[in-house]
Amino acid sequence: MRENMKDIVRRTKEASYCLANASSLSKNQFLLRLADNLEREEEEIKKENRRDLEKAKSAGMKSSLLDRLELSSSRIKAMASGLREVANLPDPVGEVIEGSKRPNGLLITKVRVPLGVIAIIYEARPNVTIDSVGLGIKSGNALILRGSSSAIYSNRILVDKTKETLSQCGFPPQVVNLLECETHEEVQELLTFRDYIDAVIPRGGAGLIKSVIEHSQIPVIETGVGNCHVYVDKSADKEMAKKIVINAKTQRPSVCNACETLLIDKEIAPQFLLPVVGALKEKGVEIRGCEKTKELVGDIKLATEEDWYAEYLDLILAVKVVGGIEEAINHINKYGSHHSEAIVTQDYMAARRFLEEVDAAAVYVNASTRFTDGGEFGMGAEIGISTQKLHARGPMGLRELTTVKYMVWGTGQIRE
Amino acid sequence: MRENMKDIVRRTKEASYCLANASSLSKNQFLLRLADNLEREEEEIKKENRRDLEKAKSAGMKSSLLDRLELSSSRIKAMASGLREVANLPDPVGEVIEGSKRPNGLLITKVRVPLGVIAIIYEARPNVTIDSVGLGIKSGNALILRGSSSAIYSNRILVDKTKETLSQCGFPPQVVNLLECETHEEVQELLTFRDYIDAVIPRGGAGLIKSVIEHSQIPVIETGVGNCHVYVDKSADKEMAKKIVINAKTQRPSVCNACETLLIDKEIAPQFLLPVVGALKEKGVEIRGCEKTKELVGDIKLATEEDWYAEYLDLILAVKVVGGIEEAINHINKYGSHHSEAIVTQDYMAARRFLEEVDAAAVYVNASTRFTDGGEFGMGAEIGISTQKLHARGPMGLRELTTVKYMVWGTGQIRE
Repeated sequence: MRENMKDIVRRTKEASYCLANASSLSKNQFLLRLADNLEREEEEIKKENRRDLEKAKSAGMKSSLLDRLELSSSRIKAMASGLREVANLPDPVGEVIEGSKRPNGLLITKVRVPLGVIAIIYEARPNVTIDSVGLGIKSGNALILRGSSSAIYSNRILVDKTKETLSQCGFPPQVVNLLECETHEEVQELLTFRDYIDAVIPRGGAGLIKSVIEHSQIPVIETGVGNCHVYVDKSADKEMAKKIVINAKTQRPSVCNACETLLIDKEIAPQFLLPVVGALKEKGVEIRGCEKTKELVGDIKLATEEDWYAEYLDLILAVKVVGGIEEAINHINKYGSHHSEAIVTQDYMAARRFLEEVDAAAVYVNASTRFTDGGEFGMGAEIGISTQKLHARGPMGLRELTTVKYMVWGTGQIRE
Repeated sequence: MRENMKDIVRRTKEASYCLANASSLSKNQFLLRLADNLEREEEEIKKENRRDLEKAKSAGMKSSLLDRLELSSSRIKAMASGLREVANLPDPVGEVIEGSKRPNGLLITKVRVPLGVIAIIYEARPNVTIDSVGLGIKSGNALILRGSSSAIYSNRILVDKTKETLSQCGFPPQVVNLLECETHEEVQELLTFRDYIDAVIPRGGAGLIKSVIEHSQIPVIETGVGNCHVYVDKSADKEMAKKIVINAKTQRPSVCNACETLLIDKEIAPQFLLPVVGALKEKGVEIRGCEKTKELVGDIKLATEEDWYAEYLDLILAVKVVGGIEEAINHINKYGSHHSEAIVTQDYMAARRFLEEVDAAAVYVNASTRFTDGGEFGMGAEIGISTQKLHARGPMGLRELTTVKYMVWGTGQIRE
């Protein structure tokens, strides 16, 4: 009989206290050893992964999803080197952020501590299992992992290896647990265990995220949906603007910081649009434009209201001619997902206004939206990009997996 | 016909962008002018408040609640001076928290910005209306206020005065809106407007908070429930411990940072408990103890499992004799609400262990739990004390009503 889900979660919470004050050295040793163990036991991992792949194939899973499910040699190596990179990052736990001695003599310090227990809910990408273990353990957090049932054999073997390595390194194996809840009702029940789980991070598509937000009583960190814009101001350097638009749209169209809509000032549109649309089409990009865009560039599909909201994650670009910066900012704040937004301009005041008035996690002047990334921002590995405003906004690295605690050192103070 | 709730919320969001970049000077002028206006129009406010009071009296509201509902002259003065205090605090918006120039030349700055729109859901205490306006506007946030229907006349007049003053100061009055949703279903609908509201803060009793958490799809900041402990270690200075226990329990028993359970090491219990329990009883405190406590001090009620979980907010104290610091820490982490916890000890290693292993927003050595407070921590006014781990933990001042934005200043960078 499967163990009761609530019992697993409760024991994860209990075990989490042991991890919270573990030394950086012991956590790093665990990460390095797990990397070695995964590489050494590659054949066993691939064997279990093949069971998932075969089941998925016979269920008719499409090839892009099969690719994400597969644990190839190179992907196992990538998981191992990811763990080694995380081991090299500074430990966020224990940082004294600020403090003061109060007039009554109380010495107050604000110290970074782990969140406690983090639940990660994700889809059929078993590499997320190890990625989460790396960032979670390094930041001192215990983990509840709920992957897709299509990846169950892969996730089981990866969590088994994790638990073995935890034991080898003197940690209770209960700090990482895989939940095999299969029904939506079970996942929804999990999302009510507010006493034992401190945060939930959904990692996956918009549907998964929406469902977690709707059902969770535990605080959620929303990641990932990116309907990003590039606005080309009338004063833009046209060559720079062209490079940025092409990079933001085509360098990696399937990710959240890729550009989905191009906004262009009406004054510059007649000279700018035709060559840029030509270059984009050469790269295989489908254009969906407003009436004015269609007038200027001819043979394209007309954009609908839905296109302005769309996160295509594909070689499709919506294009709109706007009256100026104000219309651009209003469009972005209305239709955007508050992820990454860029202006291309030579006008100082336009740059400043865009930075201040656009409501997004990352706002760029004269740079591609593609830079919103933990690595590019100098944070090392990231667990996702938060598009909500509470707790963390933008790329979330190790520090964003922590909270704070006030430690107060008194000498007998009482309140009058 | 009442305006559609969703329309009000949408217009609050639109108006919020105007406030987000308002100068500190203009926000402070608004706060000072509102303080003056409230004092000058005291009679009108009291007249509307009396309508609520009369309705509540005839509905049989008990006197402690009637007291909270009343806007007396002194309470109106207190609201005004609260606004003046907030005007004097530094503006959190625009602070550049950190930044760096990346190897590719991108200049990245992490800047503090308002959350956007905050919904405050509260009970029949109309002073919370003005308190929220002060902290909300100062931190650049638009507000959706949902008070109790028992305070509707009071809240209406206070929000009318707020809107008048906003107009006088050149702000759109739509940045503060009172919602008169009366049914639970309407409040639940409000809690689904994730596109327009950035955070929800319930301010009130445990029932209100629980209901908001259960129904909200918008990120919630949980405030307030405090089941706080004082643990008297075997090495404690007994005189200091006695003062701290009495202060933490009796100085203001109705607030969240008051002590609810005394834990005492078995070695010191025989000499310590009798005089302390005597002093507490003199102050009118009812003791509910474990078996061992009853053996030592005689005539008291036995504590049940429920007592260990209780937030009495009253002159009642649960007392438990424990085997040592480990049992104390485990008890606190199991039964506590992660608010404020104190150890009284002369033992350096016990102090350090308690600070590190107890899982709470504020952990004290040799001081009363009563110090967990924005003012006492040097933050100025506070909107509550967060007992969750995401976003803010402990006293929440103006800074905790903000988020961040990455402003990235490029020179044409694209990602390779």
